[in-house]
Amino acid sequence: MLAKDSEKKIILTGDRPTGKLHLGHYVGSLQRRVELQNSGAFDQIYILIADDQALTDNWDNPQKIRDNIIEVTLDYLSIGIDPDKSNICVQSGIPALHALTFYYMNLVTTQRLSRNPTVKAEMGMRGFSSAEGENDNAQGLPVGFFTYPVSQAADITAFKATMVPVGEDQEPMIEQTREIVRRFNQTYQRDVLVEPDILLPETEAQRRLPGIDGKAKMSKSLGNCIYLSDDAGTVKKKIMSMYTDPEHVNIEDPGHIEGNMVFTYLDAFCHDDHFAEYLPDYKNLQEMKDHYARGGLGDVKCKKFLIKVMEERLAPIRAERARWEADIPAVYDILARGTANAVACTNETLAQVRDAMRINYFDDRSIIQDWEKWIRQ
Amino acid sequence: MLAKDSEKKIILTGDRPTGKLHLGHYVGSLQRRVELQNSGAFDQIYILIADDQALTDNWDNPQKIRDNIIEVTLDYLSIGIDPDKSNICVQSGIPALHALTFYYMNLVTTQRLSRNPTVKAEMGMRGFSSAEGENDNAQGLPVGFFTYPVSQAADITAFKATMVPVGEDQEPMIEQTREIVRRFNQTYQRDVLVEPDILLPETEAQRRLPGIDGKAKMSKSLGNCIYLSDDAGTVKKKIMSMYTDPEHVNIEDPGHIEGNMVFTYLDAFCHDDHFAEYLPDYKNLQEMKDHYARGGLGDVKCKKFLIKVMEERLAPIRAERARWEADIPAVYDILARGTANAVACTNETLAQVRDAMRINYFDDRSIIQDWEKWIRQ
Repeated sequence: MLAKDSEKKIILTGDRPTGKLHLGHYVGSLQRRVELQNSGAFDQIYILIADDQALTDNWDNPQKIRDNIIEVTLDYLSIGIDPDKSNICVQSGIPALHALTFYYMNLVTTQRLSRNPTVKAEMGMRGFSSAEGENDNAQGLPVGFFTYPVSQAADITAFKATMVPVGEDQEPMIEQTREIVRRFNQTYQRDVLVEPDILLPETEAQRRLPGIDGKAKMSKSLGNCIYLSDDAGTVKKKIMSMYTDPEHVNIEDPGHIEGNMVFTYLDAFCHDDHFAEYLPDYKNLQEMKDHYARGGLGDVKCKKFLIKVMEERLAPIRAERARWEADIPAVYDILARGTANAVACTNETLAQVRDAMRINYFDDRSIIQDWEKWIRQ
Repeated sequence: MLAKDSEKKIILTGDRPTGKLHLGHYVGSLQRRVELQNSGAFDQIYILIADDQALTDNWDNPQKIRDNIIEVTLDYLSIGIDPDKSNICVQSGIPALHALTFYYMNLVTTQRLSRNPTVKAEMGMRGFSSAEGENDNAQGLPVGFFTYPVSQAADITAFKATMVPVGEDQEPMIEQTREIVRRFNQTYQRDVLVEPDILLPETEAQRRLPGIDGKAKMSKSLGNCIYLSDDAGTVKKKIMSMYTDPEHVNIEDPGHIEGNMVFTYLDAFCHDDHFAEYLPDYKNLQEMKDHYARGGLGDVKCKKFLIKVMEERLAPIRAERARWEADIPAVYDILARGTANAVACTNETLAQVRDAMRINYFDDRSIIQDWEKWIRQ
């Protein structure tokens, strides 16, 4: 029995397909998506491959987006997203999202968009400037990029998502969405749209897994990522080159845990069982950390342990990926089916939106009577 | 035999349905549309009732737009727009326009939109401010209003219009459209979109028919309009109240032609034949003007003549309107058919746009081979 619209629990989540997914994505959101998916607590789950959003700052390179749609989809399937439980869908294939973006733009001011801190930060990262002057070095701000919070509100509300798992940097986006929902329902006097709840990361590692260089968040442009699709040799090489503690020159020297990527990654990935299996010298991570801190534990030994811990996690993901890579037509069918489901769901919302706005002139002929009355008045 | 796309002559024109059409519209554009329609020189004509655009500054009053869609349609039919030659279509019923707007927003910067003089002028008229400050009295600038030049470019290019008849104030809009066309075709290396030519008014009256108060262009908000749907009594009353020459107190006084609305309207509407029939004292308008200028011709006589001239034009329009008012279902069918034709035409353009952008993932399964190659590289 289906729950009523307002009682349904619906998740919307997703990624811009601008690159393969890495451990930062895995720890920060992918892992949790699989948990939520398998919890059985949600009526519907949509995972949006946001190619339209990616085009707002890659409009001149659609090939990059095209290639990365398959990469991201393979990443999803390899970590345990189950297409029978979660709809993996491609944004550009969902026409209702364009229409909703169009109509929501009437309900937001340019001033409000200019104040969005996420957009401001991302503009800086991309070298976009909203300044009026034409003499600076910054690129002009594409309207599509400026307005993408509206498009994101369209994504979330089109599915009537009740829960949106995102990072803290995305909080202003969800607040913008909630504002649009309230403004729409109030303006058109109908409770059509649903205010989503935000689901924030719970642990420090979920919030921010640093890159292997220890400098910042994992990011393709910084070249400090371990990708879910990296082979065992690549992962080994990356871990062996990981930033540890520059003051820990000799094994006997006391070492620092804080800021040492090996321990940061172990915090995120290792369990007590790993010690019994791969490093029985210690019962648990705390014992190992204590030894490192007081001196006498070398980086190489730590890194070799981390490699084993990571491989235990990554090897099955890699095997699952290989299985799907061998059957791209099946992956295509999953995307086509997920997108078709998304189209059906969002078209229903769009129909309700158009009905609330009273612009559904051609759904039926009922406007004829209204017009006849209007003309004769 | 149909001409090739690039050889086809296609007109796009239209109106925001925010009020009934008046003599200013008639002289400035409607009359010419009928001439163009009946010239046989065009392969396709689309007349867009731009309800979506009207919503950008009437988002909170869709009922007004709803009522005026029928008013504007009746006005079109009553002045001689022939639904077998021209497609009258409703913008909100044409989904491709939303998608094209969405993608074109990537090709325009916020700086470029801010410099659009038409938008600047219209913002002033509507009390919208784009200033960042929150303390002034102006309303914030709705994003939909700010971006409507992009939406207008979508309208024009979706139909591959080669010719757009507009007023001079709309020239910046057409230039913006031409820029988007060039940018799109260059970015996606395909000559998909067509640069439209602008068709400007040829006469002073076409450029600007003043209101009956002589103060400005006819405008609903100024209450100085004669509507195409006004009954004979209303037209008579409005003409009798027309602004003439305040210095022409007695009949014998010399009168001024310049700025005298009666003569401005006669310039726009009367022919020599009218004198033979209604005012045989003069052969033509010049003789009448000369008499008025030297003194001895009273305003009332002039106005009565203008009433007869206008009635000759307006009575058949009124009769035609009454015929259509009695058959609103037929009018509805005309809109439904015109909109269906517009949907077919614009969906074809959107398919070409998506193909050029290479985001048509689900049109066929050809991407499977691309993805297989990409994964194995």
